[in-house]
Amino acid sequence: MEFKHNVRDLKFILKEWLPMDEIFSLDKYKEYYSSDDVDTILTEGYKIAKEMISPLNVVADQNPCELVNGVVKNPPGFKEAYQFLQLNGWGSVNEVVGQEGGMPLALYKAVGEMISAACPACNTNIKLSAGAANLIVKFGTQEDKKRFLPKLINGDWQGTMNLTEPSAGSDVGDALTRAIPTDNPRIYKIKGTKMFITAGDGDMCENVIHMVLARPTNGCQGSAGLGLYVVPKYWVDEEGNTTTKSNDVTTIGVEHKMGLYGSATCMLNYGENDECYGIMLGKAPDEQGRSKGLAMMFNMMNESRIATGHNANCQSSAAYSFSSQYTTERIQGYIGKERVPIIKHADVRRMLLDMKACTEGIRAMIFKGFWFIDIAEYSPDKDNKKAALDFEAILTPLIKCYSSEKNLSLTAEAIQVLGGVGYTKEYPVEQYLRDSKILTIWEGTSFIHGQDLVGRKMTMENGAPFKKWMGDIKTFIDANKNAEGLSREMQKLEKTYLAAEELMNLVYSWHANKAEKGKFLNLYAIKILMVFSELYVANCLLDQAVTAQNTIKNLPPDHYDLKFYKGKVQSARYYVNTYLSATIAAVEDIKSEDTSVFDIDEEVLVVS
Amino acid sequence: MEFKHNVRDLKFILKEWLPMDEIFSLDKYKEYYSSDDVDTILTEGYKIAKEMISPLNVVADQNPCELVNGVVKNPPGFKEAYQFLQLNGWGSVNEVVGQEGGMPLALYKAVGEMISAACPACNTNIKLSAGAANLIVKFGTQEDKKRFLPKLINGDWQGTMNLTEPSAGSDVGDALTRAIPTDNPRIYKIKGTKMFITAGDGDMCENVIHMVLARPTNGCQGSAGLGLYVVPKYWVDEEGNTTTKSNDVTTIGVEHKMGLYGSATCMLNYGENDECYGIMLGKAPDEQGRSKGLAMMFNMMNESRIATGHNANCQSSAAYSFSSQYTTERIQGYIGKERVPIIKHADVRRMLLDMKACTEGIRAMIFKGFWFIDIAEYSPDKDNKKAALDFEAILTPLIKCYSSEKNLSLTAEAIQVLGGVGYTKEYPVEQYLRDSKILTIWEGTSFIHGQDLVGRKMTMENGAPFKKWMGDIKTFIDANKNAEGLSREMQKLEKTYLAAEELMNLVYSWHANKAEKGKFLNLYAIKILMVFSELYVANCLLDQAVTAQNTIKNLPPDHYDLKFYKGKVQSARYYVNTYLSATIAAVEDIKSEDTSVFDIDEEVLVVS
Repeated sequence: MEFKHNVRDLKFILKEWLPMDEIFSLDKYKEYYSSDDVDTILTEGYKIAKEMISPLNVVADQNPCELVNGVVKNPPGFKEAYQFLQLNGWGSVNEVVGQEGGMPLALYKAVGEMISAACPACNTNIKLSAGAANLIVKFGTQEDKKRFLPKLINGDWQGTMNLTEPSAGSDVGDALTRAIPTDNPRIYKIKGTKMFITAGDGDMCENVIHMVLARPTNGCQGSAGLGLYVVPKYWVDEEGNTTTKSNDVTTIGVEHKMGLYGSATCMLNYGENDECYGIMLGKAPDEQGRSKGLAMMFNMMNESRIATGHNANCQSSAAYSFSSQYTTERIQGYIGKERVPIIKHADVRRMLLDMKACTEGIRAMIFKGFWFIDIAEYSPDKDNKKAALDFEAILTPLIKCYSSEKNLSLTAEAIQVLGGVGYTKEYPVEQYLRDSKILTIWEGTSFIHGQDLVGRKMTMENGAPFKKWMGDIKTFIDANKNAEGLSREMQKLEKTYLAAEELMNLVYSWHANKAEKGKFLNLYAIKILMVFSELYVANCLLDQAVTAQNTIKNLPPDHYDLKFYKGKVQSARYYVNTYLSATIAAVEDIKSEDTSVFDIDEEVLVVS
Repeated sequence: MEFKHNVRDLKFILKEWLPMDEIFSLDKYKEYYSSDDVDTILTEGYKIAKEMISPLNVVADQNPCELVNGVVKNPPGFKEAYQFLQLNGWGSVNEVVGQEGGMPLALYKAVGEMISAACPACNTNIKLSAGAANLIVKFGTQEDKKRFLPKLINGDWQGTMNLTEPSAGSDVGDALTRAIPTDNPRIYKIKGTKMFITAGDGDMCENVIHMVLARPTNGCQGSAGLGLYVVPKYWVDEEGNTTTKSNDVTTIGVEHKMGLYGSATCMLNYGENDECYGIMLGKAPDEQGRSKGLAMMFNMMNESRIATGHNANCQSSAAYSFSSQYTTERIQGYIGKERVPIIKHADVRRMLLDMKACTEGIRAMIFKGFWFIDIAEYSPDKDNKKAALDFEAILTPLIKCYSSEKNLSLTAEAIQVLGGVGYTKEYPVEQYLRDSKILTIWEGTSFIHGQDLVGRKMTMENGAPFKKWMGDIKTFIDANKNAEGLSREMQKLEKTYLAAEELMNLVYSWHANKAEKGKFLNLYAIKILMVFSELYVANCLLDQAVTAQNTIKNLPPDHYDLKFYKGKVQSARYYVNTYLSATIAAVEDIKSEDTSVFDIDEEVLVVS
């Protein structure tokens, strides 16, 4: 069974659906890329994903990262893949802000999608190096950039993000790691233990550059007191070369997990021998002991969170792809007197269309997110920039949470399509379920994102950006009410919109009466997020369907690509007719303000 | 973290909710068991599950079954556990029909639930021996019973069921395994390959007794041509002793799976050297080449299917139990200025109540099933027997499919409660997700059960039993409309009932117009099954809530058990207010008769 990806849909997004010209014409890109490059880049990226990356996925599952003599050993082939991608322009360079020659994000992410689908653990390493580099780009001095960026981007080094500690998980503000001033005002001694550090060590690179949250000696309590420090595994000289001097960072454990064995989840000790040093990003604490460490870390979070949602959808897509191939090969059951491949059975087709519609719809939402990120970063127009930044902020929790939650049922469905063999390691499908379950927890749990939506994103600027976002959906509905062959679906979208609007007002009324009703914001946070996600995914799918219908009109009836466009319409139709009744129903449930969760005694909630 | 189980709920079911007196007063049981024995038996069973069985679960995950020199090696401790349970009356003896001293099924299954929750792979072995023994009880001669039953039940031997072959999965009728007549009319030579045979070999017992579907030489094509044969691994003499003569059954492989490592999933070769013999159950083929092999096998299926649904709920319950314990230990986040255990957070409480309500509701439905099985088997009253048999038949697909499908989100939710550590093997939760994913496929995939419901169970006797089943739900609603503190929930149940009734009529109209509408029966089979399952689970939970409310009335306000009863009411309230709007919405979706699944071209359903 070969790795295959829905490249046609990526091309549709980049060449027919998203207004990519607005991106290609930005100063950052206009001299390097145009719409004409899309096909070539996707073809080349697909080849790499298929030939170089996809074989690594099962290798990683069979050869988990392990700690050997204090150093993490990555699965065979990971080093070569990492260095190839970084050196040849398929890696971090595209995600690090302001790098000359980087691709537009949506274009690069189309390639990243294929690499991630082919081997999720492999792409994570690229992403983390980019994340670390971006912190230095945004908050480092000129010297820091010269010192750290080239090798973080060219594949010589790898980067990490260190937030979690044994007693500081969702509540990062409880971190105990300390930063002790030295004679050099920008250099601190670092001391503490970090856990769940993805790619916290490895043998792919000559050095690992850790971005570490720690509390300076005069830092205040809580998250406001945390500073951000660049802590290399081996000390780096000012020219940006790795020295032989160990920086006293010790890997004390690698987690044994449900999946994603190719990605080392490390526990790291900083300064066991009092010899660990970090370079401060940003400023020293103010008189109240406040640093901006967490705020800086979060500055990069939107993109990481969208990337996590994207990772989930990549895995769903890969699982769908493998299972869909199986349905044409596996002969089982009869239609009339003939034994048939299982794709002929209604329920199998239903599962395939379900996976198709959901992965396409979520992909559409995610690529909208990437589009907004590029406009927000590089648009010369202040208003455009602001609007894009707002929409990116609103979409972030939706993408992260909806995609990763949906992923569980989609990868499970892929197993179901295969039946018994889907549960075995003979086929690559079950691995995707195991590998991806972490994604509802990474970069903030689903609840954190629900809370982010209802508590922050819906209320910023008194709700003006969120109402504008809702208004755009309404505008789409008004403009396309009578879209050919889609009027029933447009009606349903409108009904869903009205329910969501009611929900929005309910959320605002809870905010206005927080003493009495505030508890419902937390209780229903995820459910509320799901409503707006489904509304938006349906909107994206119907928008794509309208685009497809317009193309169909101009195609001869025997055109080779007609099936693809009709398939886009059917994806939209299926999603709307399968999910939106439940979306509307969810609003009903939320309106019930049922208090059983609060009323019940803890003693009977816990099995004892 | 210790294994704990919701024993209080089992006692509630057996002593306060189900009319168990009808069971205890049956001739089969009245001299052995009464309601007074429930506490003692559950206490003892819980002790065994906790102390002997639960430690085996992680042992199995770390020491998977493997094929060593042609013999399957079970994880350490499995042999001792199997023999202990079988020898001491905690095993197959309770499930094999007509065995003197066996417990009422619902009572035994309460113990089985704890054993299965403690170590799912372990309990599967017991179940399979019982299944094999039951086929001999129902279809064997007196000689067969004498020869095979004692040691299948006492732990000396283990049993298996052999249906699947490499090219015959969901469509068993395509089986290629042959049965060739010999001089002895009841003995056939068996030749063929069977796959996915659970516990197909092992080192727990001196012999393995396989129940094998095979096609006799003069058997017709399709499932009607299959006969059923008892095929021991070592030949068994007429006195019921294992001989040293190998019966030419070879284990040629053990599957590497996503989970359930403690259960060997085997590929078996029968008659590689032409020296494999099986004893025929039932009759030789008739003139048309028809045997009743599959029908006999299916005779035992209802119970196996309910057991699979039960297994799923046991796993959900165990995952819930472990995760609930974690919420009181793990300190994270603040309420006001105080750091709190995570059970204080609304979203964590929501997840706990979700798992509580769902596992309790599904448990209630399953134990109704066990209750009906006992009445159907042993009631002296023909009408009661018939009604129980009908209801058992209707509940079977609901229990199997709904419980196993729901299990995925419940075990995933348990992981989510733990956060990052939930994804690691440090806690026992992720194993339950991996172990249980197979249960939507075992004993017929979810679709097979949807089809069973809409194609067979809803239509048997022109729908009379199904309408009676629906009528009982209506009767409950009418009788309890004004139940104290539950009127809003009863209204919602009624609304759901009305939607389900509409759906029932729609299904019948599709049957009546099969040429045009028949395709929707397959398309929506699972979704239809979900509607009736959720209706019934809500009915069971509200029925339990009414029972609890009646008890509450008579309890002093400081009674130690008051919380439990209030918790039952809250489970019902939560389930109704969280799930039933979507149930009603699902009926809306089904009514849409959306044809996109049929319209879409196969070429775009398959990623290529």
